[in-house]
This record gives sequence, C-alpha cells and structure tokens, in this order.
Amino acid sequence: MKKYYDAAIIGGGIIGCSIAYYLAKENLKVGLFESGELGGKTTSAAAGMLGAHSECDDMNIFYPFARNSQLEYFKLEKEIRELSKIDISLCKGGIYKLAYTEKEKKEMESLCALPTVDWLDANQVISNESTISPLILGAAYIEDDVSVVPEAVCKGLGISASVLGAELHEYTQVYDIQKQESTYLIKTPAGEVEAQYVVVASGLWSNSFFESMGLSNRIVPVKGECLSVWNRGTVLNHTLFHEHQYIVPRMNGSLVIGATMVENDWNERPSLGGIEKLIVHAKKMMPEIGEMEIGSTWAGLRPQTFDKKPFIGRHPEQEGLLFAAGHFRNGILLAPGTGKMISNLILGKEVNKKWREAFKIERRHEVFA
Amino acid sequence: MKKYYDAAIIGGGIIGCSIAYYLAKENLKVGLFESGELGGKTTSAAAGMLGAHSECDDMNIFYPFARNSQLEYFKLEKEIRELSKIDISLCKGGIYKLAYTEKEKKEMESLCALPTVDWLDANQVISNESTISPLILGAAYIEDDVSVVPEAVCKGLGISASVLGAELHEYTQVYDIQKQESTYLIKTPAGEVEAQYVVVASGLWSNSFFESMGLSNRIVPVKGECLSVWNRGTVLNHTLFHEHQYIVPRMNGSLVIGATMVENDWNERPSLGGIEKLIVHAKKMMPEIGEMEIGSTWAGLRPQTFDKKPFIGRHPEQEGLLFAAGHFRNGILLAPGTGKMISNLILGKEVNKKWREAFKIERRHEVFA
Amino acid sequence: MKKYYDAAIIGGGIIGCSIAYYLAKENLKVGLFESGELGGKTTSAAAGMLGAHSECDDMNIFYPFARNSQLEYFKLEKEIRELSKIDISLCKGGIYKLAYTEKEKKEMESLCALPTVDWLDANQVISNESTISPLILGAAYIEDDVSVVPEAVCKGLGISASVLGAELHEYTQVYDIQKQESTYLIKTPAGEVEAQYVVVASGLWSNSFFESMGLSNRIVPVKGECLSVWNRGTVLNHTLFHEHQYIVPRMNGSLVIGATMVENDWNERPSLGGIEKLIVHAKKMMPEIGEMEIGSTWAGLRPQTFDKKPFIGRHPEQEGLLFAAGHFRNGILLAPGTGKMISNLILGKEVNKKWREAFKIERRHEVFA
Amino acid sequence: MKKYYDAAIIGGGIIGCSIAYYLAKENLKVGLFESGELGGKTTSAAAGMLGAHSECDDMNIFYPFARNSQLEYFKLEKEIRELSKIDISLCKGGIYKLAYTEKEKKEMESLCALPTVDWLDANQVISNESTISPLILGAAYIEDDVSVVPEAVCKGLGISASVLGAELHEYTQVYDIQKQESTYLIKTPAGEVEAQYVVVASGLWSNSFFESMGLSNRIVPVKGECLSVWNRGTVLNHTLFHEHQYIVPRMNGSLVIGATMVENDWNERPSLGGIEKLIVHAKKMMPEIGEMEIGSTWAGLRPQTFDKKPFIGRHPEQEGLLFAAGHFRNGILLAPGTGKMISNLILGKEVNKKWREAFKIERRHEVFA
Ligand SMILES: Cc1cc2nc3c(=O)[nH]c(=O)nc-3n(C[C@H](O)[C@H](O)[C@H](O)COP(=O)(O)OP(=O)(O)OC[C@H]3O[C@@H](n4cnc5c(N)ncnc54)[C@H](O)[C@@H]3O)c2cc1C
Ligand SMILES: Cc1cc2nc3c(=O)[nH]c(=O)nc-3n(C[C@H](O)[C@H](O)[C@H](O)COP(=O)(O)OP(=O)(O)OC[C@H]3O[C@@H](n4cnc5c(N)ncnc54)[C@H](O)[C@@H]3O)c2cc1C
Ligand SMILES: Cc1cc2nc3c(=O)[nH]c(=O)nc-3n(C[C@H](O)[C@H](O)[C@H](O)COP(=O)(O)OP(=O)(O)OC[C@H]3O[C@@H](n4cnc5c(N)ncnc54)[C@H](O)[C@@H]3O)c2cc1C
Ligand SMILES: Cc1cc2nc3c(=O)[nH]c(=O)nc-3n(C[C@H](O)[C@H](O)[C@H](O)COP(=O)(O)OP(=O)(O)OC[C@H]3O[C@@H](n4cnc5c(N)ncnc54)[C@H](O)[C@@H]3O)c2cc1C
Repeated sequence: MKKYYDAAIIGGGIIGCSIAYYLAKENLKVGLFESGELGGKTTSAAAGMLGAHSECDDMNIFYPFARNSQLEYFKLEKEIRELSKIDISLCKGGIYKLAYTEKEKKEMESLCALPTVDWLDANQVISNESTISPLILGAAYIEDDVSVVPEAVCKGLGISASVLGAELHEYTQVYDIQKQESTYLIKTPAGEVEAQYVVVASGLWSNSFFESMGLSNRIVPVKGECLSVWNRGTVLNHTLFHEHQYIVPRMNGSLVIGATMVENDWNERPSLGGIEKLIVHAKKMMPEIGEMEIGSTWAGLRPQTFDKKPFIGRHPEQEGLLFAAGHFRNGILLAPGTGKMISNLILGKEVNKKWREAFKIERRHEVFA
Repeated sequence: MKKYYDAAIIGGGIIGCSIAYYLAKENLKVGLFESGELGGKTTSAAAGMLGAHSECDDMNIFYPFARNSQLEYFKLEKEIRELSKIDISLCKGGIYKLAYTEKEKKEMESLCALPTVDWLDANQVISNESTISPLILGAAYIEDDVSVVPEAVCKGLGISASVLGAELHEYTQVYDIQKQESTYLIKTPAGEVEAQYVVVASGLWSNSFFESMGLSNRIVPVKGECLSVWNRGTVLNHTLFHEHQYIVPRMNGSLVIGATMVENDWNERPSLGGIEKLIVHAKKMMPEIGEMEIGSTWAGLRPQTFDKKPFIGRHPEQEGLLFAAGHFRNGILLAPGTGKMISNLILGKEVNKKWREAFKIERRHEVFA
Repeated sequence: MKKYYDAAIIGGGIIGCSIAYYLAKENLKVGLFESGELGGKTTSAAAGMLGAHSECDDMNIFYPFARNSQLEYFKLEKEIRELSKIDISLCKGGIYKLAYTEKEKKEMESLCALPTVDWLDANQVISNESTISPLILGAAYIEDDVSVVPEAVCKGLGISASVLGAELHEYTQVYDIQKQESTYLIKTPAGEVEAQYVVVASGLWSNSFFESMGLSNRIVPVKGECLSVWNRGTVLNHTLFHEHQYIVPRMNGSLVIGATMVENDWNERPSLGGIEKLIVHAKKMMPEIGEMEIGSTWAGLRPQTFDKKPFIGRHPEQEGLLFAAGHFRNGILLAPGTGKMISNLILGKEVNKKWREAFKIERRHEVFA
Repeated sequence: MKKYYDAAIIGGGIIGCSIAYYLAKENLKVGLFESGELGGKTTSAAAGMLGAHSECDDMNIFYPFARNSQLEYFKLEKEIRELSKIDISLCKGGIYKLAYTEKEKKEMESLCALPTVDWLDANQVISNESTISPLILGAAYIEDDVSVVPEAVCKGLGISASVLGAELHEYTQVYDIQKQESTYLIKTPAGEVEAQYVVVASGLWSNSFFESMGLSNRIVPVKGECLSVWNRGTVLNHTLFHEHQYIVPRMNGSLVIGATMVENDWNERPSLGGIEKLIVHAKKMMPEIGEMEIGSTWAGLRPQTFDKKPFIGRHPEQEGLLFAAGHFRNGILLAPGTGKMISNLILGKEVNKKWREAFKIERRHEVFA
C-alpha cells in the first residue's frame, strides 16, 4: 500500500515550508517534497527584507496582506526557536528609503502619510547613519520593515513542521501529479505516494504543473544578483533602499547588497556586469562601501507572474489541488500569510475575500485596467 | 517559429556532453539541455578511474566496449585541449588492485592473465609504493587503467562541442518530450524547441522519460560518498584499489578516497557514517593516510540498472528517440564509447552488434541467466 | 610623530578583543594589532561552550573566576548587539554531562552537589533527548553552561570596541616591542606606534614576546579537531558532553562535534584519523548522528600552559607590560573575565587577590604539588 | 642535540620552495620553515604569467635574468610532474599586449623589435580572438610569455624538494635567527634548529629579519586584487594585457582577471571598489566578459623594493646568511632563476656578475639615476 498524506506539498522553499508548518500545526499529516535542499533555490538568494511598506505599490490588496504577514513574523520568531532551535535573525532597525530628488521625495508622499512611516530630512538621516551619501534630500523611515535571514526562516519552518509531525523529503523531485478518484497520486523517482490535498509551491518551477493541470498560467524568472561585504568599521543600523536596490545589515557583521533585475534569465549565477552595477549603486547610497571587503556573490530567480501578484488558491475545477507560487520580490515577507491562507483554505476556515479574488489562479489580465 | 535542432540532448553530464561532442564533430546542429550546470550531478562526484580492467566482471561485453572507450581517451585529451583549452588531467601510473588473502589473489587470476595486466608480489609493490600496507599479499598491476578529472572531461567535451557549433543550455530543465509528425517537441520552462532526434542522457533522472515514453525501464541510485586528503609527504604514484574502494592520486597533490555503496538513497550529501567507513578502509590500504590533512567531502548517486549495464540505444518503436543512461560505476570510462555509439546510431553508421544487443532498452531479466 | 595609544593590544582573538572592549568602555585610547583577521586563529575553531561547571576541575580558583565570566555573558549579549549589531547566538539549553559507568557517575558527585547542577537518571535524560544512547546511566544537567558562537563574540567585542573609539589594525603583525623611557614602541611592518600600556594577547603565539621580555614562560599547542553535521530530523536541545568530547547544537540547525586533543601539533588542519575518532565518539553519545549529513571539518590549536591555567597579569618588573594568554580549553568562557581583570589592573582598580596569584606570570611549578 | 640542516629556508612561497628544490637537487640537507601553508600568501594570489617580455622595462638586467628563468620552466614542468606528480598547468598561447592609441603602440616598438615578439594589427588579432574589443589598434604578440598556476608550481617545487630529501615544516613561523660561532640558530615556537646557511625568503614579511640583521632594507606591499570568471562560450586562447591589467585563461575553463595596484595596503582581502575597477578594465579589453559568470575574488600583497628589483644575495658581512625577497610583480616568473642563483651562491658556483650587482642587498638609491 502506498504512503498516504493528508496534504502533499511540492517545493521546500519558504512558501512550501510555511504551508507545511501551518498545516502541521493543525495536525494534518503532511509530506513535503523538495528536489534539492530546503530553501536551496530562490529563497536562499533573498535579502530577507520584510518590506510591507517599502515594496508596497498598492494599498488596497498588497498592503493589508503583506502587513498581516509581516506582523506574524514577530510571533513566528519565538515559535520557530522553541520548536526547531533555529534563530531566524530578526534584525530590527527598519528601512531608510532614500530620496535624491524632489521627484523621488514626492513619490513617497503617500507612503509617508502612513502612521507607521516618517519622513526624515537629510540632516536627521545622516546624524543617525553618518555613512549615507550627503547627496540625499531625505528618507522615508519605516521602522517596521525589519529583516530576517531567509534560509534560516525556511529551515526553521521546515524543521518546526517536522517536529510537529510533517515528513520532509529532500532530494525528491515530483515529476507528475495524477488525479485519482478521491486522492492524488504524487510521482517521484523514489516512488509514489497518495494525498488528499496537493499544494504546488514550486516557485518558478511550477509551470509544468500548471500545464499538466490544464492551466495557462505561467511564471517567468527575474534574476536578482547580490553580493555581501564585511563591515569592520562604522556600523549600519538601518537598511538603505533606493530604486529597488538596497543595503541590508546582517547580524553577523556583513552587509547584503542587492539586487539587479534581469528579465527572463534562467542562469542562477551572477554575471560580472551585474556585480558592477550593484557596486555602482551601493556607492551611491553609501560612498565608503567601496573600501569594504567583498564577501561572496550570488544570484536567484524571482518567480514573476503577469501582474506581479502571487497565485494563491485552488485549481478552478479541482477541490484538492492548490497552488502557492509566483511571489516575485516578496516571498519572504509573504510566506507566513501565504501559509496561513492555504491552511485556511484546506481546513475550510474563513479567508479574506479580497485576497482570494486578487490571488486566484484563474484571474486574467484586465484589458482596460 | 520554433528553434530547430538536428539533435536535442537532455542532460549535460559526461554522457550528454560526450554525445554532443561526437554529433557536433559530424556537423549536426546540436542543442544540449541541462537542468543545472554541466557535470554538476553524478559526474562531478566521480573519482575518474578509467577501470576497463579493474572494474571488469565480464570479458565478453563489458571489456571490449570499455577498453575501446578507454583507448579513445588518449586521443580525446589532445582534441579537448585544442578546442576548449581545458586540460582533462589524464594521470598516468595505473592501478594496483590489492590482494590481502589467497582467496582475493585467486579471484584475480583471470584478470592477471590479460596481456595488459601483471601480478606483483608484496615486495615489488611496496618497493614501488612504500606507503602501502605490509599486510598485502600482492597486487594486480594495470598500467592502462589511468584516471582523469571527470568534471574537466565533461566541461571539456561540452565546450569543445560548443566550439564546433553545439548550443549548450544550462539551467534549462526539460520537463516533457512530445512526438510530432516528423520531429519532437522539447518543452522547457524557457520555451519549446523542435528536434529530429532526441537523446535522453539524464542519468539517474531519466525515469520520468522512460515512463512518459511507455517504457518500464527504471534506474535506481547507489549513493557513493568520497573525501579527499592533501598529501604533503610521500607521493602516491598509483591508484590503490580494493573491494570497490580506492585511493586515487590527483595531479594537484590531493588523493581522492572513494567510495561507499548505499543503495536507494537519493540524498546527495555524505553522511557521517559513510565518511567513517571510507577512513577505515583507506587506512587498511595505506596506513599513514590517517595522518594526512582532510580536504573536502562529497557524494554522488550512481545510476544503476537492473543488470548494472547501461541502456544505450533506440526506443523500440521510435526511430528518433534514443537513450543513453544508467552507466552506474563506469560512466566516466564509458563516456567516449557511448558518445560514439549514439552518434553512429543516429548517422546510420555501423555499430557492433553485440553491444547493441547488450545495451538495448528493451532487454529483460533473463530468468535462467 | 608616532601614533600614540594609551593601550596597545597584540592579538585580535577573543581575549584581545575582550580586553579592547573593556578598556574602550573606560575611555582609554586603544589600538589593537592582529596578524590576520579578528578571531581567525584558535577562537574561530572553538565550540563555544561556556563550561564553567562542565570543564571545572578546581572549585577554588577556576570555578569562581569562570562562573563570574559566564554570568557576564548575559549582559554582554545585549551590549554587543546594541553597539555592533552583531548577535552572539547565545544558545540556551545547557549541558548534559553523560555517565556510562558507575565510576563516571561517581566522579560527578561533587559537580552534582552544586546548587546549579542536577543529576538526571537515564530515563529522565532520554525522555528529554530521545536520541541519546540508551547505554548511559544518567547525566549531570547543567543549565547554565550555555553556548555562544565564538567568532561572533570576538567580532562583536572588536567592533563594539571600535564603535567606542578603539582602532583595529587587522593584517598587522607586531614583530617587536621595545621599552622606552615612559612608553613602549610597538613595531609592525606597517610602521611603529607608541603606547603607555602593552597587552600581549597573542594566544599560542605569545612565546616570542615572553622570550624577548626575559620570561621563561611557554605556551604549547594542543590541537583540537572538529566537524559539524546538519540536523534535519530530531532537534537536539542540550549540549552532550562526555570525556572532553561534545556535541553542541547551533541555532542555525547544525551540530558541532568536538574535539580531539593532540599535543604539540602545530598543524592547523584536521587529520583523517582525528575525524574518525570524533565520529566514533559522537556515535557513542548519539547513535543516529551517523546518518546525518556532514557539514565542514576544521581544527584549532589550544594554547596550553604548564599548569593549564592562563597567564593573566603584569610582567614582574614592568608596570606597563601585561600578558593575557594561555586560556587552553576555556578561552571563550574566560574572555569577559580576562578582559575585565586586565582593564582593572591597568586602571588600578581592585582585582581579586586569589586570581592575581593563580594567574600571575611568574608562578612556578610546585614541586610537591 | 639540536636538529641540523645544511640550509634552512625561511618562507614557503614560490621563492622559498624554488630555493629548497635547487638545493635539494644538490644533495644539501634542507629544512624549510613556513608560518602557514606552502604558497598560502602572495604566491597563491598571483595570476601566473611568465611575462619575461610583457613585464620588461629594462633589457639590460631584467630581461636576460627573467628570460633565463622563463626558459627553465619548460624543463621544470616535467621534473616536477615526475617527482611530485603535480601538474603545474603550463598554458601555452602567449600574450597579446594590446594598444588602443598610437602612443601605446609606439611605446611597444622596442618590445616588438625583439626576435621573440611580433606586432599584429587589429584585424589579425581579432581574427584570432574574436572577443577582443574592436577599439584596439593592434597588439604585440609574445608567444613565449606563457602562464602557469602559481600554487601548483609552489607545491610542486616543495613536494619535489621533499622527495629529494628536504624537510618541509608548515605552520612553523621563524621568529628569530641568531648567529652562532659557525652556524645559525633558527627559533620557532616548535623549537630550535641549527643550520650552516640561512636563506630569508619571507617575501613581504622579511622586514623584521632585515632589521634584526642590521640592514635598513625594507619591502612594502602593493596590493593586487583579482577575480575569476567561468567562460562557457567562446574560448580565449591568449592572455590579454593592457596597462598592467590582464585576462589570463586557465586550463580549467576559467579566466583570471587582474590586478589592481594599491600601495601600502596590508589588508589581504579585495575591496568592493577594487573589484569594480577590474570589471571596468576587463570589459575594455573583452566587452562580452560582462556577461560571464563570476567565479571567486581574492587579493595578494606584492613585495616591492625601492627600485622594484628583488633582493637576491648575501648579507654584506655574513657569509652564511642570504636573502631572496622582494620579487614584486614577477616572483612567479623569477622563481627558478632565483632558486638557481641562491643555490649557486651557496655552493660557490659561478653567478652572473651583473645580476649579483643588480640584486645585491646593499645597493642604494642612485641619486642621479
Ligand atoms: C536577489 C533576491 C532578493 C530577494 N529579496 C527579497 C526580500 O528582501 N524580501 C522578500 O520578501 N523577498 C525577496 N525575494 C523574493 C523571494 O526570494 C521569493 O519570492 C521567495 O523565495 C519565493 O519562495 P518559493 O518558496 O516560492 O520559491 P523557492 O525558494 O524557489 O522554492 C521552490 C522550491 O521548489 C522546489 N521544486 C521545484 N520544482 C519541484 C518539483 N518538481 N518537485 C519538488 N520540488 C520542486 C525547488 O527546488 C525550490 O526549492 C528576493 C529574491 C531574490 C532573487
Ligand atoms: C562516488 C562515485 C565515484 C565514481 N567513480 C567513477 C570512476 O572512477 N570511473 C567511472 O567511470 N565512473 C565513476 N562513477 C560513475 C559515473 O560518475 C557515472 O556513471 C556518470 O557520471 C554518469 O554520467 P551521466 O552523464 O549519465 O549522469 P550525470 O552526470 O548525473 O548527468 C545527468 C545530467 O542530466 C541532468 N538532467 C536530469 N534530468 C534532466 C532534465 N529533465 N532536463 C535537463 N537535464 C536533466 C542532470 O542535471 C545531470 O547533470 C562514479 C560515481 C560516483 C557516484
Ligand atoms: C577545537 C577547540 C574547541 C574549543 N572549545 C572551547 C569551548 O567550547 N569553550 C571555551 O571556552 N574555549 C574553547 N576552546 C578554547 C578557546 O578557543 C581558546 O582558549 C581561545 O580562543 C583563546 O583565545 P586567544 O584570543 O587567546 O587566542 P587566539 O584566538 O588564537 O587569538 C590570538 C591572536 O593573536 C594573533 N597574533 C599572534 N601573534 C601576533 C603578533 N605577533 N602580532 C599580532 N597578532 C598576533 C593571532 O593571529 C590570533 O588571532 C576551544 C579550542 C579549540 C581548539
Ligand atoms: C595579484 C597578483 C598577481 C601577480 N601576478 C604575477 C604574475 O602573473 N607573474 C609573476 O611572475 N608574478 C606575479 N605576482 C607576483 C608574485 O606573486 C610574487 O612576486 C611572488 O609570489 C613572491 O613570492 P615569495 O615566495 O617571495 O612570497 P610569498 O608567496 O608571500 O611567500 C613568503 C612566505 O613566507 C612566509 N613567512 C613570512 N614570514 C615568515 C616567518 N617569519 N617564518 C616562516 N615563514 C614566514 C609566508 O607565510 C609566505 O608563505 C603577482 C602578485 C599578485 C599579488
């Protein structure tokens, strides 16, 4: 007889691990299948900013969903440490979103109108962070947009799930899902299992499942290149953010500099030209960073959907098949929210209707948007 | 219009790269598709012994095919260097296959009967290699079983193929092959291409293609764990071999110690217990190795078929679809031979009939073997 | 004119960085000189147990000094995070010091008599940590012997000192100290500086300074080899300790296994035989560790003095010259205590007299000890 | 009784290892002492060009000495492989020294007048290497300026010396040399040895020995930063060279890009700004390099003397004390020549008089040079 799970999750990135965690908490029998190692793909490349405000371009849908997910982290930190003994390195301080021109300042007006965001002029910013470029006009200060170490969150969620009873199958690629009468058959080179629910959380690599399940949805890569430096001198207490680029301090003494946006590039290694661009932009934010020691370089592929919002929800015709993929620039931020939403869907609990609509798989390009 | 190739190769391990090379030499328009990096899976884990004699357990089929492939390496070394500027580090010296008991000695009698193999008694062996354990009775000396650096061969073949016109698509997983009227459609997340011939050379990960093409063939993993040490003192001039374990000298001053045999384990990382076994066995062959500095540890999954021989040949019903997978312990050794055989099949050149029979996909377990 | 420091510290391991921190807090102008990188030598090899109890073999001197230093860590954690943004990963849970025989149990009686230590029998231990070998009789449970990440502490102290005004000179070896009228001349390849006080905190590499300053003290290496594994399954919540060997859980999901004791070996890389011993012993404590994935291997040289106690104090004839070296197995534990003691000596504050006596440089072997 | 050596060598970089090799060949009892690992400092950072022509700015002294040393490599390659089984990866192809302006072209006229050098115009260059920038006017083609892998040469020489009887003491820093009646006492933390001859070959770190031996000579660092890329496409068959920067193909498929010149910087890690400069310059030579995958980044400190020529020779007053340090940009090229010269000096064989003069330690700045 085949091994049976209540829920089989395909993909052990931060999204799959978060889903596994929230389902295991509800006492479901969970099996998670991951081609390689937990968090080994896009997740481990991420900077780990929880940019509910700084990444927000839509106060209606994105912000409340993201903010909700962000607040969940403050509880998760402790739960994960207790269950898995893993520390997710939640780093306080928040973000300075820099403005160099009046135009940039203007564009931040609505952001700064939020009760959780303040505008600081150049003097204030520089008196807090003396290494920031004197060319700025000021910055939006977002205290709540803290950061975490994505790989730690991902492993922490995965191992916590496992402590709660989930089974983690690393190095096990799912190559096919087949609908049976009342369950699904999940095929892997190591054998087959059965599950009542299947959640596709394979990030960028979800397209083959969309296709085999009759969906025309597609996810495309937007490669992001990064590097780290060792800060031996002045300490940076805030994340600096400008034009989608950033410098994020880590609690081991390094700074993460990210990230380029290279559309439709599947190669997972950083290019020389990408690294050059990062250095130029980082020096614009923090001139003395040019003197710092380089650490390592890496890249990851952001899973982008046609409207840059994730697909989270049920297959339009199949009750037991769910998707949670396409989190683009914000999968770390959105992981707890996504895990809870999928768990609620499976358990038949209430889910915010706006979010269901906004993230449903069968949504289409609005021609007159 | 879709991109067209004469031949599309799925898998950029040493087998796929060898096939690409031999086809590109024949002026076919070749496209190679590899999920990750060239040689990044089983190939990069291999020790690189060309053990036509030492691994031989069958003089009828394996030996002539393997020996032929081995001899090809002596030409390939120069061709690869000239085309790709890559040095495959062909390391002369050969193998000492050690015997500790009369039984082991006896088992090597037929091996030693070969004109290319000599029996040396303990004194002779130890006077050449003073670090070998004094407990041996002697060794079969196989001068022609030299070694190479597998990753270098694989990249060298791949880049040489590319210099000859082949197109290498790394980070591009093929998730489906579909037969069309006169060509095949090859599906990847980055898009679709068409090809007249398709060669599945995905090693251990070929099962999903067998399945989708209606074949019941399966390949299972036999994990092999390895480690390296830095030799700062006495130089080892020969590979030492005993009970499927070995110590292989590399031309950068390190020694490769391999390898365990763990059936049906898909995890690609070495375990603590595996490393312990390797150390114990290595000290049995070369006691002072216990004093040497450890280098790195790694593992790889050998692709094993039911009869331990590779599948090389056509799909029984489809002219344009070929397979070359399941090379188990000897894919490095057999890569040139396999590449040439596939090339000859595609080009309609003559192929040794015994080999066609022995490696054909539709062969079955002989009940009264 | 030469650069002047109130205090020049030679050595940027955990001892030198701790001294720099406590002196900088007192507003002294501090210069620290380190041959390589902060913490790059013995410190980065350490497991990071704060074994005030588990390493204790002397309740009279070692215990109070060590316990005092241990307690300081609970304050330091926060200070370091605030000043340097570095998290020292203080990992709670404490130590299970295992007993397999009645003799071992007996030897722990005095330890278990301490108010901070409890004896747990096998059942209790195993119900908390199901992976511990069923062959144990029980364990001393020492909740306060927590652990930290030594490199993080060292960098954290160094950068905190720098934030408080200290100057850190990495890649700057001091090759000579010369007494002048009222100051010392410190010679480095990058030039000379002057200082009123000099503290030699060069760990194992302090002998040349002892010699050039007319002292016959010597420090010898006791090499310790280590390795780490990735724990994907059951979580280990306590450090396991037996016969000077241990398994320490880290808050990133790995376990550190240490450490051998190789006397008088200056080579800083682990040997194959050392790694084998570690695996054997670790499996004795936690049998299933043999299944876990190996992470990395490393070694470090413990600085051992003739009586295994550190040298902390003034040169017998020179007011301005101090030593803090030879912390053997416990330099991480003793770093805060040592830093404070040196700071108090320099500033003329009170220092516990017993400790001054026990650690003074001019102490001798007691013939009839 | 103390261990005795005919010659003790201080420093196990390429210079010390070369000296050890040539002395061991002459049957001297040689002991080599190295603080860390063989070749672990400046040597391992080098690109490995043997630029007898391309680095030449002085036909009178530098060229013949360098050319002689270069030619020695063609013999050494085989000797090293036979003795140590190490392959130094001698990579043929030679150098294209690029000219972008008439001025640069003009400056190469004397170089191109050499029988071993040819001028190629832009068309010729680009038809051989299609990836070179079309902005060049042409290039001096120097076929004999091949390259090697410096670390391999260094280990190869060291292990070959050891096979010939030399004793290599890694992790053993010499902290003092004391002249005795007829021998020298060499002091290390691991104990003392005696030797008739002492050769200081400690590269940049030789200053303390100059000082303690009464010499005012000094060596200063010129930091060089480097990075490598993986070339998966078009193969580069020649080293490209322009304004002291270069792109060197390695025989493993990578390209080495070097190197900045940062005076008086002792930090051994590359800075962000240095890496940026390298990328900009590399793209100037080979525009498509911007698309290639970055490999690793590193730095090393070139040992520079006041006149940029090495110190090779005897202490002016001490027969038994020799120096071989300060090889600046060309220590790889000059290693065999230096090893032979020191060996000849010790054995009383003839040494080219011009070279003795040019490299002697007691030479001074010529005021009217
Ligand atoms: C440079 C960079 C910086 C970023 N910074 C941030 C940031 O600061 N904040 C933020 O919120 N987000 C950030 N992101 C985005 C974030 O990383 C992603 O949105 C998130 O990691 C997506 O998680 P995932 O689990 O969907 O994907 P992945 O982490 O890619 O996980 C999917 C997993 O599925 C596995 N898989 C695929 N196919 C199969 C199969 N057939 N069978 C089994 N397993 C399979 C894969 O191996 C993979 O491990 C960044 C991304 C990049 C590249
Ligand atoms: C420890 C060890 C030691 C060994 N020592 C030796 C030795 O000394 N001598 C010897 O001859 N042999 C040795 N071998 C055996 C040898 O390594 C293998 O037989 C050989 O590498 C198999 O090559 P391959 O190209 O078939 O497989 P792989 O190298 O695994 O290549 C298959 C490639 O296909 C890719 N792929 C898979 N699925 C897809 C897809 N859907 N789309 C695109 N790409 C895909 C994979 O990413 C992979 O790169 C050893 C093996 C091990 C593990
Ligand atoms: C395997 C292992 C496990 C251990 N586990 C523990 C543990 O769990 N708990 C614990 O408390 N302790 C532990 N220890 C012991 C602890 O690591 C040491 O006692 C401690 O690190 C000593 O610190 P240090 O600063 O004196 O030495 P180091 O860290 O060696 O620092 C000395 C520094 O001086 C520099 N230096 C030397 N000479 C010069 C010079 N001339 N000029 C400038 N700089 C110079 C060196 O480069 C070095 O960085 C362990 C040690 C080992 C090896
Ligand atoms: C980026 C870069 C690129 C370069 N490219 C080239 C090139 O292409 N071609 C070329 O010819 N040259 C090149 N060079 C120059 C070349 O690397 C150096 O000239 C050469 O390595 C110097 O060798 P060395 O043995 O003198 O020094 P090192 O390699 O530094 O060796 C000196 C050794 O002495 C040891 N030591 C120091 N003090 C002591 C002590 N007290 N006791 C014991 N041991 C001690 C050190 O640990 C060290 O290992 C390059 C250099 C750099 C930095």
